[in-house]
Amino acid sequence: MSNTAGQVIRCKAAVAWEAGKPLSIEEVEVAPPQAHEVRLKILFTSLCHTDVYFWEAKGQTPLFPRIFGHEAGGIVESVGPGVTDFQPGDQVLPVFTGEGVMLTDGKSRFSIKGKPVYHFVGTSTFSEYTVCHVGSVAKINPAAPLDKVCILSCGVSTGLGAALNVAKPKKGHSVAVFGLGAVGLAAAEGARLSGASRIIGVDLNPIRFNEAKRFGVTEFVNPKDHKKPVQEVIAEMTGGGVDRSIECTGNVQAMISAFECVHDGWGVAVLVGVPNKDDVFKTHPMNLLNERTLKGTFFGNYKPRTDLPGVVEKYINKELEVEKFITHSVPFTEINKAFDYMLRGEGLRCIIRMGD
Amino acid sequence: MSNTAGQVIRCKAAVAWEAGKPLSIEEVEVAPPQAHEVRLKILFTSLCHTDVYFWEAKGQTPLFPRIFGHEAGGIVESVGPGVTDFQPGDQVLPVFTGEGVMLTDGKSRFSIKGKPVYHFVGTSTFSEYTVCHVGSVAKINPAAPLDKVCILSCGVSTGLGAALNVAKPKKGHSVAVFGLGAVGLAAAEGARLSGASRIIGVDLNPIRFNEAKRFGVTEFVNPKDHKKPVQEVIAEMTGGGVDRSIECTGNVQAMISAFECVHDGWGVAVLVGVPNKDDVFKTHPMNLLNERTLKGTFFGNYKPRTDLPGVVEKYINKELEVEKFITHSVPFTEINKAFDYMLRGEGLRCIIRMGD
Repeated sequence: MSNTAGQVIRCKAAVAWEAGKPLSIEEVEVAPPQAHEVRLKILFTSLCHTDVYFWEAKGQTPLFPRIFGHEAGGIVESVGPGVTDFQPGDQVLPVFTGEGVMLTDGKSRFSIKGKPVYHFVGTSTFSEYTVCHVGSVAKINPAAPLDKVCILSCGVSTGLGAALNVAKPKKGHSVAVFGLGAVGLAAAEGARLSGASRIIGVDLNPIRFNEAKRFGVTEFVNPKDHKKPVQEVIAEMTGGGVDRSIECTGNVQAMISAFECVHDGWGVAVLVGVPNKDDVFKTHPMNLLNERTLKGTFFGNYKPRTDLPGVVEKYINKELEVEKFITHSVPFTEINKAFDYMLRGEGLRCIIRMGD
Repeated sequence: MSNTAGQVIRCKAAVAWEAGKPLSIEEVEVAPPQAHEVRLKILFTSLCHTDVYFWEAKGQTPLFPRIFGHEAGGIVESVGPGVTDFQPGDQVLPVFTGEGVMLTDGKSRFSIKGKPVYHFVGTSTFSEYTVCHVGSVAKINPAAPLDKVCILSCGVSTGLGAALNVAKPKKGHSVAVFGLGAVGLAAAEGARLSGASRIIGVDLNPIRFNEAKRFGVTEFVNPKDHKKPVQEVIAEMTGGGVDRSIECTGNVQAMISAFECVHDGWGVAVLVGVPNKDDVFKTHPMNLLNERTLKGTFFGNYKPRTDLPGVVEKYINKELEVEKFITHSVPFTEINKAFDYMLRGEGLRCIIRMGD
């Protein structure tokens, strides 16, 4: 690939031209990396709710045309000036951090016929090539299979870290997990790895329970099945409340329930799901004074560059199974199918194969 | 005192006949302690906001006539059946735990001419003698001066523990303390003992700042002096927010400010003040997802029976100064003056001398 270093690369990218409309595969120009940036060849990417959230652009300032994508794996194609800790050929996971442009100079590295196309969270992995700041890239074990570990660059690590780093259930604890998508099931997996004895999955979709069992979920509560608030149902199931809860839906009512379902005196609730812009978290302060703790986490409190390689090692050492999160796989040209699966709540992760 | 064991004691108590009206010193009958109860001779008591809060009975079911009081020191006069860990003469601090009646049999141990008078939080220390469940009494070092350490049985330990046990500031941290009454200043003292380098006191009453300096408060913010919310003022003072905040007012807006003024990524806010019944804590969930932690605490997370003797030892070992919290002292007959001081926001703690 050395022949492309310093050159503009022309390649295929899936471009979102407007909010909520199918992506379109276009030829884009990818500028060379600037100072403290690297250009990556993306081999596998997957779709995460955050992509869909910003693609729908409800309640945010829409930035279009834009190249989404942030769960991915690739290799370094070339590096910009001042980059000392990456070199071409390094196997990496990009990690979301940035804005719609490169922070170095406030410009985009993508264009179509010379007209700029916006970046997404510093990663824009729905492109065969992308440019990232070095702060948004983690170098991982070259032996790790990128078609598997690419999903560790966002959702799965977010849920896993929410359990292992933030909720920190103890052996024998009860844990409620709200939302049984990939993030919630990764949280359940983290709770299971921590030795939790009861893992109560909460979801509005009863189909998810069977899948959830493979991630350690022992009981299932569908709020629709109960007249009373789900926090009261859980309190009754557990003699006053769970030891830990982890909220992975982003629905503010679920956040409130997740907080109020932990046991007073010691319970810890962890918020993971991304709320809507105008959401308000409301609770009676006495719920806090009763010695509950409420925490939020971003990316499971992992520091991407330094901690993500260790999560990949967990997979390599067979402490963590990622295959069970991968329910679909499509070639890059069929990327819109991944959106359809997610919008229908079907499966967990869809791998998009860039090389196909 | 052994001659009174098993007998009804007639003594003086300050009785609240109705909400918000001055207490009246009355002769009351104090029944002997029942199973797992002790009868105490109260030597010193002090007035805490919680007494005033329930005496005003705003938003709670009023229980009158009632004997308030829960910050106090005394000695065991006699013990009921099954009590093995206390004996007459033990020096103790009662600690709030209970209801308006004794939980053993749902009855009161106080009466006036045979008519029951309600207890208050299991302590009712505005009486020369009171009956407590053993779970509401902590045995302390007999060398401790009760006229000083009596204030450790509630407010001061609550604030101190909120800092030492819950907020846990590290050396060099910045800490905001909302409310500079006895509880808030005890929290400031705890922050100072933890090595906090900046302690920002927040209060609507500028007179409190001078007093606050003696408790380690280094800066003062009066929300009335600013047009913008106090959390923004504090964020500007501290490059994005304090490391820790401790809310000791019970005002729900102050709780929200205390939470939102901690730095994202690592800030911890601790709620101590008791809210009103219908208060709602509201914040945008993104404030949590940005890795802030919100905790509440009751009695500074001290376990009264087992931890309070250790707090008393801190005083005896001169690690903790309690004298500076004591700004007034009155004989029992003038107990209503203590209410006046507190309602005017004058001083910190008023010791009520039962023997005078």
